[in-house]
Amino acid sequence: MRNLCMTVSFDGTAYNGFQTQPGGNTIQDHIEEAIRLLTGETVKIHGSGRTDAGVHARSQVFHFHTSSAIPVERWCLALNARLPDDIIVTSAREVPLSFHSRRSAKRKTYRYTINANQFPDVFQRRYQVHHPGKLDIPAMQQGLEYLIGTHDYTSFASRHSTKTSHVRTIYNARIEVDTSMSRAGTRDQGVLHTYITGNGFLQHMVRIIMGTLIQVGEGKRSPEDMLRILQAQDRSAAGPTAVSQGLMLWSVEYDELDDKS
Amino acid sequence: MRNLCMTVSFDGTAYNGFQTQPGGNTIQDHIEEAIRLLTGETVKIHGSGRTDAGVHARSQVFHFHTSSAIPVERWCLALNARLPDDIIVTSAREVPLSFHSRRSAKRKTYRYTINANQFPDVFQRRYQVHHPGKLDIPAMQQGLEYLIGTHDYTSFASRHSTKTSHVRTIYNARIEVDTSMSRAGTRDQGVLHTYITGNGFLQHMVRIIMGTLIQVGEGKRSPEDMLRILQAQDRSAAGPTAVSQGLMLWSVEYDELDDKS
Repeated sequence: MRNLCMTVSFDGTAYNGFQTQPGGNTIQDHIEEAIRLLTGETVKIHGSGRTDAGVHARSQVFHFHTSSAIPVERWCLALNARLPDDIIVTSAREVPLSFHSRRSAKRKTYRYTINANQFPDVFQRRYQVHHPGKLDIPAMQQGLEYLIGTHDYTSFASRHSTKTSHVRTIYNARIEVDTSMSRAGTRDQGVLHTYITGNGFLQHMVRIIMGTLIQVGEGKRSPEDMLRILQAQDRSAAGPTAVSQGLMLWSVEYDELDDKS
Repeated sequence: MRNLCMTVSFDGTAYNGFQTQPGGNTIQDHIEEAIRLLTGETVKIHGSGRTDAGVHARSQVFHFHTSSAIPVERWCLALNARLPDDIIVTSAREVPLSFHSRRSAKRKTYRYTINANQFPDVFQRRYQVHHPGKLDIPAMQQGLEYLIGTHDYTSFASRHSTKTSHVRTIYNARIEVDTSMSRAGTRDQGVLHTYITGNGFLQHMVRIIMGTLIQVGEGKRSPEDMLRILQAQDRSAAGPTAVSQGLMLWSVEYDELDDKS
């Protein structure tokens, strides 16, 4: 028995999220079917975590056990030939049997993208939320900083969260503003990429942070409200859950695998 | 009667090209329908040129005559609300009645994108051609330079071209290599964006240039073959027509309108 670890990129627009669920049409379902077509084996893959319906991944990591003797360097092309063109396996390696894509993960980074230019970007429209109204970006950056550290993030977790502890650590959170598509002399404010890196994330956590942070940008809340919301440990203190299409699982890092990103 | 000039971005994947044709479902059809829904007028819009089925535009320019009194600053939002989300009007202005988007155009730039990394980019897959095989990029750059200048481009025009003259001027042609998505230690060669600027382009001209240039990159032809093909003035001397999805109308420039791009 071998343990294979792979990275996969996907456009989540057409799927019901990463993990298998009763409604079907998940990324996991399609990957398991591709493995079955390739090897004849029925395997269960384990992702580094779930992603919601409509969320994208630049680099999700999963592992599975297989009896197949197919050399590791053949897997990517062989699976991609059996996958839809919005799911692409980009690396494969053999790992110790003790490796687990979720339990072994040390850090994860998500990116959330807001297009604050006057018009949507037709070529990025599936991967960003369009917000042409005025946003106070420095206030958003300030608000985001209150979330860095080790905290109980109950206020930023779905009420349906089943985790026994809501304590997590956010190592880094920053907004990068890309003005390359902004036109001079207009109200274009740029494209805001918010990167949040932590040791783990609760259900809807990044989307609730972003929904609240957009309210800070709109002037409906102050940056300091982010701290008060955090301290409240109450979901109703925070803002709405931002839509899924702006969210992308950017990278998953492991101690054992130095170039997993 | 007013003459309005607009710029439009579109993802051409789902359409039968820019210009109205018997099969319907063109960009022009959708824009004219949006204008009719907005103003009640049946107008004919005039693009700066045609684009083939599946070709994209960052910035196509069109004009039309209207009796509508809607202020020019209201048009973009009003039309976008009546257009599918893969067609976005990004500017509108009133121009002299003598302005014609095709006849007044001075320079046009097209971009053709080849992903020469080992795997497709799932988020750019509709806007680039994937070519994981080895490409000799310096040879391609050298071959491209033979095309700059004023020449008869019959060899690089569709046999169905109805133009009386195939003499055009290419002002600039260059390949930019973006390695930001390339992974160290792999066979990833980068994403090749080829920009070609000229005073006008014949039917399929950029796609035939690119289909031939890819053969130069593959070592099937020498860079100097580009000159010999040009001099042959014979379509059969050139390579195949590259697929449309890699092509994007990048900009159209006018003397009269300094910020049309």
